[in-house]
Amino acid sequence: MENQIIQPRVLKGFRDALPQEQIFRSGLIEKITGVYRSYGFVPIDTPVLEYTEILLRKSNGETEKQVFRFEDNGGRDVAMRFDLTVPFARFTAEHKAELAFPFKRYHIAKVWRGEKPQAGRYREFVQCDIDTVGSDSAVCDAEILCAMKAALASIGIEKIKIHINHRGAFNRFLAGLGVQDKSEDILRSVDKLAKVGTDTVMAELEEATKSSDAAKKILDYIQPSANFEEAIGKMESLCGGAGDDTNRLRQVYQMLEAAGIASSFVLDPSITRGLDYYTGLVYESFLDDLPSIGSVCSGGRYDNLAGLYTKERIPGVGGSIGLDRLMAAMEQLGIAGKKGSYLDAEIFCQDESLLIENQKAAAALRSLGVKVEVFPEAKKMNQQYALAEAKSVLWGVFVSADGKLSVKNLKTREQTDGLDPAAAAKIILA
Amino acid sequence: MENQIIQPRVLKGFRDALPQEQIFRSGLIEKITGVYRSYGFVPIDTPVLEYTEILLRKSNGETEKQVFRFEDNGGRDVAMRFDLTVPFARFTAEHKAELAFPFKRYHIAKVWRGEKPQAGRYREFVQCDIDTVGSDSAVCDAEILCAMKAALASIGIEKIKIHINHRGAFNRFLAGLGVQDKSEDILRSVDKLAKVGTDTVMAELEEATKSSDAAKKILDYIQPSANFEEAIGKMESLCGGAGDDTNRLRQVYQMLEAAGIASSFVLDPSITRGLDYYTGLVYESFLDDLPSIGSVCSGGRYDNLAGLYTKERIPGVGGSIGLDRLMAAMEQLGIAGKKGSYLDAEIFCQDESLLIENQKAAAALRSLGVKVEVFPEAKKMNQQYALAEAKSVLWGVFVSADGKLSVKNLKTREQTDGLDPAAAAKIILA
Repeated sequence: MENQIIQPRVLKGFRDALPQEQIFRSGLIEKITGVYRSYGFVPIDTPVLEYTEILLRKSNGETEKQVFRFEDNGGRDVAMRFDLTVPFARFTAEHKAELAFPFKRYHIAKVWRGEKPQAGRYREFVQCDIDTVGSDSAVCDAEILCAMKAALASIGIEKIKIHINHRGAFNRFLAGLGVQDKSEDILRSVDKLAKVGTDTVMAELEEATKSSDAAKKILDYIQPSANFEEAIGKMESLCGGAGDDTNRLRQVYQMLEAAGIASSFVLDPSITRGLDYYTGLVYESFLDDLPSIGSVCSGGRYDNLAGLYTKERIPGVGGSIGLDRLMAAMEQLGIAGKKGSYLDAEIFCQDESLLIENQKAAAALRSLGVKVEVFPEAKKMNQQYALAEAKSVLWGVFVSADGKLSVKNLKTREQTDGLDPAAAAKIILA
Repeated sequence: MENQIIQPRVLKGFRDALPQEQIFRSGLIEKITGVYRSYGFVPIDTPVLEYTEILLRKSNGETEKQVFRFEDNGGRDVAMRFDLTVPFARFTAEHKAELAFPFKRYHIAKVWRGEKPQAGRYREFVQCDIDTVGSDSAVCDAEILCAMKAALASIGIEKIKIHINHRGAFNRFLAGLGVQDKSEDILRSVDKLAKVGTDTVMAELEEATKSSDAAKKILDYIQPSANFEEAIGKMESLCGGAGDDTNRLRQVYQMLEAAGIASSFVLDPSITRGLDYYTGLVYESFLDDLPSIGSVCSGGRYDNLAGLYTKERIPGVGGSIGLDRLMAAMEQLGIAGKKGSYLDAEIFCQDESLLIENQKAAAALRSLGVKVEVFPEAKKMNQQYALAEAKSVLWGVFVSADGKLSVKNLKTREQTDGLDPAAAAKIILA
């Protein structure tokens, strides 16, 4: 038994990341993190495991079926988090006396859902959340949108449209039609417009409202307009005049103009974002070059974050970048990172008598800021070159017995000999 | 029912991190990561959940009792990883055709053990691992030690002693005494020397060896010496002359001297590091100013990483920084980070008529590299100052209706008025 090999494998719906992919992923996370931080968001951490009662109280049946839930050794009913919002709500309620409000947190971490595995869907994935809680201000709405736009730009995603809307305006419009009691079904249909097309949505709306006139009006309401002014004007005329909702949209849009980024935003009355959580601004984001992959960044404003855990009302606004979907999109668009390591240089090992000299050279180069490793054995040079290539290393270094270095550009094969470490570092870091 | 408040709380042995703690933790991880990368280690990722069969095959009964294990919705026997080594072994065996050897990976991530909660011990904690696999070379041993020393230095831990030893020498010594068949018990006793003291260890050794002479000789063998030459000389004389093991220790030490860091290392024959995994170099690290907290960084060389999952022999050397223990030590030593955010400046809101001007100023300052947020509402100034203080913000910014900025040092209260954004940014970033 002890010598029997266990087939190395991961669970269905899970996956490993090899170095090149993980370097790409880490780079995206670091850039997004840098932007979140620069806007004043601060990190928190919460446990991966929580009481099931905490995580599942507000969820619908679908989530309940997907969650990894079990009894721990102490007989507690526990579950792995399926998003970062519910733990944040619990965290905010638990620590509200220790937090400075408005409280702005980012949390970039894994979550788990036992969904049916399918292309691009995994049971373990990363969410990149920001939320500002404790303020109803439009400034917070605008700031979330600015931060998301900047975060996407930081990873090279400049060609993007962020579609914004307001749940309140839609509700007023439906009330005007007398179909507000059907709003759940209507929102669910409208939300599918991009996916299933006009005909299917029309049929569903007729079914829901029992009125082809109402269905037509709803379909008209959610049609896009050429620009913000036209869109907000139409929205106001269809939902009974200006209101807090459309005024908020105007104010947020003004701030986006002040920030110089309004051209990346469109007012899109078809954006609804699910059913009961969001109460104000909602948004989704689509890549100009690959809209079909779906929204890569979405969120919105909610009235009350933590009503399950505290009687204090905590309003907020937030959102999340779907990192795995974004990585898949960047892969498809041919803009995914391909770096094999973070190294500047590889010190090759020509002869084991040079092991000590190699260490001296490595230490000297490192003290000069060069990221360098030493090939550990005097293997054939083609093996050593292959490793340097796999690690995307541009510079090879050979050390002589007298401590002098030769530096070789591994692409051009150009080589400079007889260098001291400072001169070598200058070439490598140039 | 729906209105009943659920007490917000985390599971026993788990904890949240508030922003200040998480900023401190993130800073340590980023610095350690930077060093690992600069030495040529590359990141990988593996799932948090694995087949129990994969994770637990090699473990002892103690681990088995501690692991979070359950049956998933598909009836699979799964478990949360309890370290990063076993997943790395599975990963290496599974992907060996895709990896370039010697393969050097870092992995900094959470692991879970259902240990009895006690001061400083949690059920969810972070490990910071590096390993080099696919080479038996002393260069890899030395590089791991150099990288660990540099990683600790990067976070301000300069006063540290890394105790090294070789399992082979100890085994030869025990064979010479004729007690190699008791080596498990002996190693376990010796490993406790620092914790329980000489008398207890002596009693245990007598019990294990049934010989007070052998026990005395073992106790003598593990006594420290003044310097490396003396220690290695004594070791060689006690274990029957120089061997591969002591030669390896000499070679590694020479490389540490070449790297200019040998003074941080001591040859300590009492270091054994558990029982069956390590086969060569082993090491543990103790803070000069707080040795009692135990080893903050340990590891060693092993003959065969992945024997359970592949017939190919994969030797390696590695180690781990115990981040949570290190953070506790830094807290005790008064050198823990206390930053409340990453912001340079806070734009205060004196009047809601300035909301748009504030956004313009924020966008201008951000384009100049200033990390800045806008206070979202015209609240009382003492509330706004309190937030800036909680977020460790040094600079306050006031925007006038004409777009001019005033910049205030929130410590000295010095203020400069009438600035354009470029002049303001220059002061803030100076």
